[in-house]
Amino acid sequence: MATEKIPYKTYLEEKEMPEKWYNVRADMRNKPAPLLNPGTLQPMTVEELSAVFCEDLAKQELDDVTPYFDIPDEIRDFYKMYRPSPLVRAYFLEKALGTPAHIYYKFEGNNTSGSHKLNSAIAQAYYAKKQGLKGVTTETGAGQWGTALSMACSYFDLDCKVYMVKVSYEQKPFRREVMRTYGAAVTPSPSMETNIGRKINEEFPGTGGSLGCAISEAVEKAVSSEGYRYVLGSVLSQVLLHQSVIGLETKAAFDKIGVKPDMIIGCAGGGSNLGGLIAPFVGEKLRGENDYRIIAVEPASCPSLTRGKYVYDFCDTGMVCPLAKMYTLGHDFIPSPNHAGGLRYHGMSSVISQLYEDGYVEARSVEQTNVFDAAVQFARVEGILPAPESSHAIRVAIDEALKCKETGEAKNIVFGLTGTGYFDLVAYQKYNDGVMSDYIPTDADLEKGFATIPQVNL
Amino acid sequence: MATEKIPYKTYLEEKEMPEKWYNVRADMRNKPAPLLNPGTLQPMTVEELSAVFCEDLAKQELDDVTPYFDIPDEIRDFYKMYRPSPLVRAYFLEKALGTPAHIYYKFEGNNTSGSHKLNSAIAQAYYAKKQGLKGVTTETGAGQWGTALSMACSYFDLDCKVYMVKVSYEQKPFRREVMRTYGAAVTPSPSMETNIGRKINEEFPGTGGSLGCAISEAVEKAVSSEGYRYVLGSVLSQVLLHQSVIGLETKAAFDKIGVKPDMIIGCAGGGSNLGGLIAPFVGEKLRGENDYRIIAVEPASCPSLTRGKYVYDFCDTGMVCPLAKMYTLGHDFIPSPNHAGGLRYHGMSSVISQLYEDGYVEARSVEQTNVFDAAVQFARVEGILPAPESSHAIRVAIDEALKCKETGEAKNIVFGLTGTGYFDLVAYQKYNDGVMSDYIPTDADLEKGFATIPQVNL
Repeated sequence: MATEKIPYKTYLEEKEMPEKWYNVRADMRNKPAPLLNPGTLQPMTVEELSAVFCEDLAKQELDDVTPYFDIPDEIRDFYKMYRPSPLVRAYFLEKALGTPAHIYYKFEGNNTSGSHKLNSAIAQAYYAKKQGLKGVTTETGAGQWGTALSMACSYFDLDCKVYMVKVSYEQKPFRREVMRTYGAAVTPSPSMETNIGRKINEEFPGTGGSLGCAISEAVEKAVSSEGYRYVLGSVLSQVLLHQSVIGLETKAAFDKIGVKPDMIIGCAGGGSNLGGLIAPFVGEKLRGENDYRIIAVEPASCPSLTRGKYVYDFCDTGMVCPLAKMYTLGHDFIPSPNHAGGLRYHGMSSVISQLYEDGYVEARSVEQTNVFDAAVQFARVEGILPAPESSHAIRVAIDEALKCKETGEAKNIVFGLTGTGYFDLVAYQKYNDGVMSDYIPTDADLEKGFATIPQVNL
Repeated sequence: MATEKIPYKTYLEEKEMPEKWYNVRADMRNKPAPLLNPGTLQPMTVEELSAVFCEDLAKQELDDVTPYFDIPDEIRDFYKMYRPSPLVRAYFLEKALGTPAHIYYKFEGNNTSGSHKLNSAIAQAYYAKKQGLKGVTTETGAGQWGTALSMACSYFDLDCKVYMVKVSYEQKPFRREVMRTYGAAVTPSPSMETNIGRKINEEFPGTGGSLGCAISEAVEKAVSSEGYRYVLGSVLSQVLLHQSVIGLETKAAFDKIGVKPDMIIGCAGGGSNLGGLIAPFVGEKLRGENDYRIIAVEPASCPSLTRGKYVYDFCDTGMVCPLAKMYTLGHDFIPSPNHAGGLRYHGMSSVISQLYEDGYVEARSVEQTNVFDAAVQFARVEGILPAPESSHAIRVAIDEALKCKETGEAKNIVFGLTGTGYFDLVAYQKYNDGVMSDYIPTDADLEKGFATIPQVNL
């Protein structure tokens, strides 16, 4: 392998890093449906959104026409701490699989938050600071977003209050310590600190919580505290905008080595990593300039795209957030304690949902044990212990590379390796001990969730 | 900062990666004293060493004249998984300190073993495979070396048996899972599996163990098992040889950006990281071509350079290993459960010891709470949660940068950031909770250790 032309890792130079984020909505003919005010069920205005989000972020959230946003210098400086991230040619994995396919991955795990989440965390902290806020509240599932936000808040000297999904809080005590090291306050959710938390604890005693529930708590805390706003690590269009830095770097790196990917694969919980990774590629697809196969991979335990409904639903269990038109399992759907905490969300980004609806994106669901088979295979040959979330994408990348082995096609496959699994060793231990369980909701389970979806007549 | 000439991170291109390791002993006028056979107290031959180590490694161990060794292609390929590692300009730390100094660090933590240890692990596994062995045994303190070796053995399909210092085994259960994920068998040391383990358990019931003790167990297991050899992650001259890749890359990166470092700082347990980082620089110093200040940083709890004796001593508690002339606290010195497990070794590389004796290297000892003060300050501004071991170097780099602030000097300081602290959150939790303890051995404590040093008359 020592003489291959394409290097194992392709890094952009710092001066080649993106100066603008790309807003894919500007190129969508069918725009994502507008967010609705949970009280009036009418489209949200910037003013209404600004009660929950920072003003600049509220504007970004509702802007579906501006194709590019300048990345402020302060954020570009911070990005240089851990970006550009490498585009890695998976030579060792290809060899292990014996596939003619060329496999690449964009690795976002080389920072202490352990994932791509930092790309949006620093942007949201920046706008909060710019607005003169005291602090922000948020939720975290696997803990990656909370860690990222605590790092970003520490950098800009903002208070950071994190509601962590209880099942993850218990499985990942060390995540809490990282957040504390960066000065954040972390509370397991559902907590007894908020009205919605107390209500959920009463209705579902002993529940492990969910992202939807933790979101409700964080929003309640933000709107009831002076000088605070709520920030969210996924689902929102503003987050996909910030995460476009992943895809823009990926595209620039591919251009640098003269390769055009045929297939782009990403795991999809709320959709932030996938939306970011595919942004410039799906932009070309929308404009008819180029074609790419794009695959969203979700856990079989929480299959919003593959088995959900494309309707208006609340973004949170507590119904305090705006409604979004999205693929959803129902805002009351509480998934089983699947270890990929970052993928346990009942809905999907309205941008990804619309792209899926319009056929620009495919979706596939995979089961947990199969995912860990792929994770361990990848770890052993590529030397990186992947996050369970990211391993969903690895699973499908391997499956597609094995199809190429059958057909003899040398396709260029790229997937998003969103993060590392250093805080997911409880899950790895279960896998190593052979006691990992798979869970697929029955149709009846799904019907229960669907029954909670509100009727919206626009 | 967006317009700085020197980038935040300097990466070599893969084709610029070192093709040879550098053997600093070739340029030393005063060679390190030879290893002695523990039975005869005579200098070890390659044949004798080959009973414990792989043959090629035994040759490297005893070769103090050959300046360069080719890095085999298989190892260079593996290096491309995670190398070249970045040379980072610590702009954010400089700003936080308000220092005119220019601070750099060579970051070795961007691989799943979390440290520089992988550089030698893959080399040692390669030579074991080349010799047709079934597997290798080793010890691990903090777990970094064991993780690295398990990754390397998995890559070459070798059995891997790890004795892990009990205090680390208990503090870092997740390290064990990473090793298991890579297929290694992990046993807490002292164990009941070996003669020396049983003996130590009897003499010191409830002991947390030490690196010296775990080494004895691993050696005993290797020499009593068919097709196995022992491998060691530090102290040995062969390890310093492999780790020279760190310093060679560092020097090449400095040459690329046109900077000459004034001061080179590394933490020192057994000396592998420090020895690797300084190799080409101390080579220039030995040859009289250039001058650099070089500082070895050790924990005040285990101060082999600053308070030890420069004499022949056993490398292990059980007295089954060769004797080395080195700065030592006595092979029976069992340090307090300092969290920097990787620095809890009673002796120091004979190469570093001789360089220190001859005035080419300075030494400084630092206390644990001060180290964590530096670790957290660094984490918050540079975005990397450092390993406690590495944080010893951070502490002194910050101290030196603050001296520059007083004097107004714009010195170029570089330190080795050997690894990440993702598996050290128990220690961070103690620090965050304000219950971290410092420990400095009394002179009487040291005398107890010194009393165990054998009399050797060569």
